[in-house]
Parts: sequence; structure tokens; C-alpha cells
Amino acid sequence: MTTNALARYLPILTWGRTYNRENLSNDLVAAVIVTIMLIPQSLAYAMLAGLPPEAGLYASIAPIILYAIFGTSRALAVGPVAVVSLMTAAAIGNIADQGTMGYAVAALTLAGLSGVMMLLMGILRLGFLANFLSHPVVAGFITASGILIALSQLKHILGISASGDTLPELVETLFAHLGDVNLITLIIGVGATAFLFWVRKGLNPLLRSYGIKPALAGALTKAGPVLAVVVTTVAVWVFGLSDHGVKIVGSVPQSLPPLTMPSISPTLVGQLLLPALLISVIGFVESISVAQTLAAKKRQRIDPDQELIGLGAANVAAAFTGGFPVTGGFSRSVVNYDAGAETPAAGAYTAVGLAIAAFALTPLIYFLPTATLAATIIVAVLSLVDFSILRTSWSYSRADFAAVLVTILATLWFGVETGVSAGVILSILLHLYKTSKPHIAEVGCVPGTQHFRNINRHDVQTNPAILTLRIDESLYFVNARYLEDYVLDRVVRDKAIKDVILMCSAVNDIDFSALESLESLSARLSDMGIRLSMSEVKGPVMDRLQRSDFLTHMTGKVYLSQYEAIESLRDPQPVVS
Amino acid sequence: MTTNALARYLPILTWGRTYNRENLSNDLVAAVIVTIMLIPQSLAYAMLAGLPPEAGLYASIAPIILYAIFGTSRALAVGPVAVVSLMTAAAIGNIADQGTMGYAVAALTLAGLSGVMMLLMGILRLGFLANFLSHPVVAGFITASGILIALSQLKHILGISASGDTLPELVETLFAHLGDVNLITLIIGVGATAFLFWVRKGLNPLLRSYGIKPALAGALTKAGPVLAVVVTTVAVWVFGLSDHGVKIVGSVPQSLPPLTMPSISPTLVGQLLLPALLISVIGFVESISVAQTLAAKKRQRIDPDQELIGLGAANVAAAFTGGFPVTGGFSRSVVNYDAGAETPAAGAYTAVGLAIAAFALTPLIYFLPTATLAATIIVAVLSLVDFSILRTSWSYSRADFAAVLVTILATLWFGVETGVSAGVILSILLHLYKTSKPHIAEVGCVPGTQHFRNINRHDVQTNPAILTLRIDESLYFVNARYLEDYVLDRVVRDKAIKDVILMCSAVNDIDFSALESLESLSARLSDMGIRLSMSEVKGPVMDRLQRSDFLTHMTGKVYLSQYEAIESLRDPQPVVS
Repeated sequence: MTTNALARYLPILTWGRTYNRENLSNDLVAAVIVTIMLIPQSLAYAMLAGLPPEAGLYASIAPIILYAIFGTSRALAVGPVAVVSLMTAAAIGNIADQGTMGYAVAALTLAGLSGVMMLLMGILRLGFLANFLSHPVVAGFITASGILIALSQLKHILGISASGDTLPELVETLFAHLGDVNLITLIIGVGATAFLFWVRKGLNPLLRSYGIKPALAGALTKAGPVLAVVVTTVAVWVFGLSDHGVKIVGSVPQSLPPLTMPSISPTLVGQLLLPALLISVIGFVESISVAQTLAAKKRQRIDPDQELIGLGAANVAAAFTGGFPVTGGFSRSVVNYDAGAETPAAGAYTAVGLAIAAFALTPLIYFLPTATLAATIIVAVLSLVDFSILRTSWSYSRADFAAVLVTILATLWFGVETGVSAGVILSILLHLYKTSKPHIAEVGCVPGTQHFRNINRHDVQTNPAILTLRIDESLYFVNARYLEDYVLDRVVRDKAIKDVILMCSAVNDIDFSALESLESLSARLSDMGIRLSMSEVKGPVMDRLQRSDFLTHMTGKVYLSQYEAIESLRDPQPVVS
Repeated sequence: MTTNALARYLPILTWGRTYNRENLSNDLVAAVIVTIMLIPQSLAYAMLAGLPPEAGLYASIAPIILYAIFGTSRALAVGPVAVVSLMTAAAIGNIADQGTMGYAVAALTLAGLSGVMMLLMGILRLGFLANFLSHPVVAGFITASGILIALSQLKHILGISASGDTLPELVETLFAHLGDVNLITLIIGVGATAFLFWVRKGLNPLLRSYGIKPALAGALTKAGPVLAVVVTTVAVWVFGLSDHGVKIVGSVPQSLPPLTMPSISPTLVGQLLLPALLISVIGFVESISVAQTLAAKKRQRIDPDQELIGLGAANVAAAFTGGFPVTGGFSRSVVNYDAGAETPAAGAYTAVGLAIAAFALTPLIYFLPTATLAATIIVAVLSLVDFSILRTSWSYSRADFAAVLVTILATLWFGVETGVSAGVILSILLHLYKTSKPHIAEVGCVPGTQHFRNINRHDVQTNPAILTLRIDESLYFVNARYLEDYVLDRVVRDKAIKDVILMCSAVNDIDFSALESLESLSARLSDMGIRLSMSEVKGPVMDRLQRSDFLTHMTGKVYLSQYEAIESLRDPQPVVS
């Protein structure tokens, strides 16, 4: 019992028990590949978040280990990711200036808050809250974020200064400094970007045409950024380009992740609450979809609530070790999986690799130009930009298209927080609007059967004194009055009607407002001398109705089947009133 | 054509054409009775809204005439009502001090804004927005408002000063001034309150026991407040009680409604936008339910969107004639109906009666004690307070009970605007939560039939290689991922499964997020070597699926009936992948 309960919260107890030599060697190979790939990526995302490069390495070490202990995905790689780094920069940018101590502390605090929120959501099993982010909102948000991130990195490619969290701000400040372009930086930046695009699109097919196996070709392709880093760093060093205005990473402390303390200042915490919540939810959604995709390939299971605990622990770890908000990243996890990682231990070995890099290799990146890091970011995020969602959602449903479009525009024009919030609110309102006018069909009996179908689509028998309406939606407050209006509207026009039957085969719930509406409908029909009955009420709905006194007040009866209702009402009976 | 279109927006053209002598005499009788009842009520509600007494009369004159032209209810009486007056006082109290010109202008502006919003909602046919106020929220809000109104009037009964918009503020300021109680005011106030309660509960049965007809007994009962006004006014005048600290209405201008201008200051308009929206929606909900109740009794129809236009015009009229926000009131409309009003013309005659009162009778109320007005308010609103909603909603559904309780507590503790907003938001969240985990039944074939039922409730035949799940809810973003998790969870545990069929007979909609989820489910099942099929997909849902490319990617097929699906899949077939 206790062991099982413990194993639920500590998945490491499950896979750790059967860990063997083969697991070890496979995990080690994967770790080496992922480590090489993660070094430039971690530096780049720290820059995107507005933090010094070493923060990116620190954010990939302790969080990975914590996730390995608490997470359920075997292949997920946790660390800084593009969208969350952008959200971090946007959240902190208004609170402190980049490069100050206050900025770094705010980043730690944001990670800590977001970690605590994820832990709480996981323990309280509130993982379903992430469902409030509909697919159109997530897709629109990711596309718009990709554009914002790419734009925010253009300044590094051009060697100018620019700032802002929204499209108008970024474009305006970029244009204002367009005269200051540094030519050498531009050559490095454009060259690195072009090279990385070619690596992504052209290298893999080329390698495979030379007979290199797909797995190795894939791994070499992923090493492209490392090559760009090495070449441009050496170029800057050899030709002394940093003396000609090329911005470089400069000196990075040689250190294992330090012990840091997030702030508990109520003012700061208050300012960061909403950003932390949005980062938690967005990070969770990104992570869980990656984890589920990879788990399905091996018929493994992901527990969303336990994932929240794993990601929460990782973020808390980031807060105490000089990091910033992290989550499970798509590209790193896929590389990890493809490289053969079998257990979360692969993540722990990656952490060791990165710790060695942080301790021993940082002097090597002194001359690394920031333009190269910007190039890796731009190439990575432009693959996130996908406007085809506009076309596919338009052809599928106008409401979903509206949610995509509003999320994209609100994110670009007003920033990430407003963008997500506007998308979520609009999705909810559109859903409520759609259910506010349920489909109601007038039905009659198909001759010779006990089936009842829509009178507008089928040849059916009806009785002018009996009106049967099939309601194709659960009844709740948003549509309760609509049904009442619909029925009253229908019977006012037709004086022959003496009986109304509501056929409830598709009604999955009747809430208190709908009950009140049914009571009022029954009373108003009774005032007109019309009897109200119901048929085919589902079991759970019936249980609930019986706990109210509606059924005793209703003028008619509840019939098990529509056929029984028609048969019973066809015979003249005194109206019970 | 043109005449019909015009008649839709001007219901007066419909009933006005057939207006005859009998209608006239019945409407006149009703108007006299309603006028007598409305004089004290209008004065009292103006006091509740924090405005001078004549504002109450003005607010009942022009609005009634405008509603008579544009409204669709034959019996609705429009004017100041208790809850809207309270909301007016709460909205303006933070902006200007009572008794100042700024306060009066803010009241006009609030009426104008609310009128314009109602007109817009009516023209855009957005009447369904009122459905967002669920029954638990409305019931909880009315009960809490009744308590707040009664408490706010206690100071007039006690002859002390007190202020505040919330329960804690009101109780605190009342206690702080408890030493200043004016004994004569207390006697008048308690006496009037007791008398009015007795009139309401005891007079009608007494009169009827003397053989007086119910209609006349009812009318005499409604005249109770007038008697209280006359007796206490005469008492104050004869005994010179106003020299002993009894607060009186004092001099009221003798005037027809003046021409007034609401403010168009952007600051003021901005401050009043949210209160105006809440007043519009609450006012509309109160009015429409009264109108529908009365219309049903005569098998007449109410058009909710046209009602918004009628109420909007009435509020705009109030803004330009020295009034404040108005709506259709319950008690006045019922009196109007019971007194035999047949057309909206009765309202116009009432307006004439009130105009005469405003012009000629205001000197008579100089000595009217405010304690009497407070007593009429208290007696009227305590009938709104109904805690039984807590019990009935508890027994019906915990979610609805939570909505009632939160609305009551939030209204009492944080005021009317927070109360309504909290209730609406909670209702929406609870609805989303309920649909976030839809009922999913595993079904099998009832032997000898083509019917499929829940395997847990019925003896049915199943095939270990085929899993059929019946989903009892529309699929949309809030529950899309739940279905995916549910199916993956189920198949991971059971290696025998080769086919999954989703039976969609109760699925009324599949939105873009759910489509994405189905695509991902299909791909993940395919990774596990499992084929996904669907059965009994409804026509409109199928139309939409065919506009996406899901059906071409799905590994299995869509079957018209579940029986057909089972029959077809029972034969071994190659998996299409």
C-alpha cells in the first residue's frame, strides 16, 4: 500500500528498480547527443529571456534531475524553451531592467511561483485546467510568439539596439536604429541564419544521399548549431572582430549552478502572479503534448497530474539554482527520444554533461557572437510559425477561426499575456454562444415503426393536438430561456395544440436554471390549457429531477419512450392540473 | 412589407389599430389604481437611489410612454424598481456625493448609457446575453440585494445616519450611530413598517371575511402604503414633529418632468460602463420574466429583443427628463394586470396621472416623514428575500448551490457589482467543469438485437479485440484531451484490443480542438497498432468532419450504425494505415 502510494508520486521507484546495463548504455549515448545540442540552445534561450548566458545552463541542470525523479515521461527533456523564455522576458521587462540584480531575482521568483502553482495544480489534480487553452488559442499563440521572438532577435543579427514586447514596439524601435547596422555583425548573423536553415532543410537529404543512415544523419543535422557556434567563435577570435563592434558573449563565470533565493516580496509576487499562472499553463500544455506523443509510440502512459508535479519540482529547482522558468521542450525531447533514451536517467546524465560544460567550458565561448545565438533562435522559432491554421480552421468552423485570429492579433499587438487571455475568454464565449441556441427538431413517428424523426427530413405521422420536440443539447442556464421561448413561440401560433412532449434522448444534463425554466414553461403552458410531458429522460437526469418537486407540479407525465408517450396521449384523457 | 417591418419595431401600430372604447375604459381604471400605488413607491425608490423624491416621479412618466410605444408586453409597468435603484446608488456613490448636482448628472448618465446598451443589444438581437445570468445567480443576487436595501433604509427608521454599499459597512456605521436614535422617528418608522406588514399579510383575508370581493380587497390592500403616507404626514404636520428631529421630505418642486442632459464626459462614461452593463442585464432579466409571466396568462407573445428596445427607449427617456435607471417592475405590473389593463395605453394614462401629481400634488408631501418611505421600501424588499433557494438548490445540485451561496456572500460582503460578476463567472466555470469530464460508457450488443448498452448495467456481448465507447457529451476544447487520455489509458492496460470504435450518437458538436485531439488519438492508436473507427455520427457533425482531412487520415471508417461497425470489424481485415 505505502510503497504503491509512494511509487505514484515517485515514478523513479518504478523504473529505477528494473534499471540495467543496457538501459545505462542507451541512456548515456542519448545524454551525450542531447548535451551537445543543449549547450548553444541553453545560452540562446537565456539571452531571449534577457538573462546572462550561464543562466541557461543552470536552468538545464537541477530541473532535469528533479523532473527525472518526479516526472512520468521516459523521454521528456526539461529546460528553457523559446515561448516560455519570451513570456519570462515580457513579464519581467516591465518590473526591472535587463542586466540588473533585480531582473535576475524576478526571473528566479517567476520560476518559483510557477513551480509552486504547478505543484499545487498537480496535488489538487487540477491538470484539466490546461484544457481551457483550446487548440486554436495554443496554435495562434505559438505562431504569434514565434514572430515576436524572431523580431526580438533581429537586433542581434543587425547589431543594433531595439526593445519592446509587441509587434508595433519592436518594428518601431528596429526602424529607429536601422542606421546603426554593424556590417560585420550582419554578415555573421545572416550567414549563420542561412547556414542553419540549410542544415535544417538541405543537410539531412544530402547526407542520406551519400548513404549515411537516417539516425546518424539526424544526429549530425542536430549538431548544426554547434558547428555554427564553433566557426563564428573562432572567426571572431582569430580576426579580432569584437574590436570592430561585433557583440560577443564575453566572460561567463566558471561555476556549478549556484544556490540562489527567489524573492518573497509581496509586491513582486503580486506583480508576477498572472504571468506565472500563464507560464505554468502554457508550459504544461507544451510539455504534456510532447510527452504524450513520445509515450504513445511505446504504448506508455503519461499521468497529467503527476507531470504537473514533475514540472513544478523542476521549476522550484530552477528558482534555487540560478535558473528561470523551464518546461519540457519539443526539439530537445525528440532528440533525446530519437537518440535512444530509455529512462529519465538519460536526463540526469545530460545534467552532468551540462554541469561539466558550466564548470569547464565557459571560457571557450568568450568570443561567441550574440548574432550566432540569435540565428539559432530565429531558425528554431520560425518553424513554430504556421499560418495554415488560419486556413484549416476557417474551412472547419468560423468560431474556431475567430479564436485563432483574435489570439494571433492580440498577441502581436498587445503582447503574450493579453494574447492568451483574450483567446481563452473568446473561446469560452464562443462555446457558450454555440450552445445558447440548441438544435430543436419537431419529430413524428416513422409509419410502421416506433422511431421518431425530424418532420422536415422524413415522411412521418403527426397528431395536430400533440407537439413533440427533440432537444439536441444539454439544458443549462445559457440555453434554458431559449427552449422556453421556442416552445411558447411555437404553441402561440397553433391553437390546435393540447399537448407538448419534450423528447430528451440527447439531454445529458438539466441544471437548476433549466429546471426553473421547465417549471415556468409548465406553468405557462398550463395557463394556456396545454399539458407538458417528457419522454426518454436519461437515468442520471431523471434521478436529479426526482429530487426536486418539478415532477409533482408538471401537468403531464414522464414516459420511458416517445412511442409510449404518443400511444398514451392519443387516447383522450382528462388534463391533470 | 414596409408596414410589417415597421410594426415589428413599433408594436403600437399593431394594438393601436384595433383600440376601442372598451379597451379605453379598462385601461383608464387600471391607470387610476396604478397611479395611486406608484406615488409613494416612486418617491421611496428615488430616496433609495440617493436622489431627491421628484426624480422618482419623473422617472415614471416619460419612460412609461416610451415603453408603451416600443414595448411588446401589454401589461408591463416601467419605472424605478428596488434592485436597480440600489445598483444606481452603489454605482454613483463612489463618484459623487448625494445631494450634489454631480450625483444627479451621474444618475442621468447611467440611465442614458444603460438605455443605449439595451437599444444596441435589442437591435443586434443580443437578448440571449441575459441568459448568462443563471437562475441561482439571479435568485442569490435578489435575496442579497433585498437584505442590503432593507439595511440601508434602517437609518431612516432609526433617525440616524449610516452609509455603505456592503453588509459590513452598513452594520458598522449603523452601530456607530446607535446612540443618536430619534425616538419619535423610531415610533413612526416601526409603526408604519408594522402596519404595512399587517396590510400585506392580514388585511386581505380580513376584508374577504367581511364578504368584500377578492379584486376590490386586493386593490384596497395595495392602497395600504398610501394610507400610511397620509396618516404619518398628517401626524407630523399636526403635531409639528419635524421640529423634534423627525426628518421630512420637505419642499419638492411643482413641475412637469424637466428637460435634462446626461454627461458625455469620457471619464464619467468610463466609470459607469460596467455598472450600466450590469444594470441593463439585471433590469432586462427582471422585466422579461415579469412580462412573460403576464403574457402567458393571455397566450400572448413577448419578443425579448424588442423588449430590449422598449426598455432602452424608456431609459434614454429617463436620462433626458430628470430620471434615473428604470425597468419593468414586478409589483406595479401585477397590479396593472390585475386591475384590468388591456394595452400599453394604460401605462400612458398612468404617466398622465403621475404628471398631474408631479405638477399639482407635491406640496402635500412636504411633511411626509422619510421613515414612512423607508418602511414602504423595507416591506417591499423583504418579500424578495428568500433563502429557500439555498435548500432547493442544495438538494438538486451542489454546483448550483455553490453558485447561489457565492453570489449571496459576494453581494453582501463586496457589493452588488462584485456579487453579480462573481456569480456569473462561477456559473460559467462550473458548467465548463461539469462538461470537462463527460460520461463515457463502454457498450456491448444486447443479445438478439441491434441495440448497444452499457456493459456495466446490462448483459451484453462484447469482442475482446474491439472496444466500443459511447460518449455522452459534445466534444469541445474543455473535454477534448479528457477523451484522448481516457481512451489511451484504457487501451494501454488491455493488450488484446485491436479496434476502438467511438459511438457518437450523443455528440452534438465536435470543435476544432476536439478534431485535433481525435487526429492525435488516431495517430497514437496507430502507433500502438490499433485502428480507430466511429459510428452513428450526426449529420451536421459529419458535414463538418468532411470539410477537414481527418477522415482521410483516420485508420478506420465511419459507420452509419454501431451494429454495422461491429459486423464489419468482426471479419478479419487488413488494417488500413
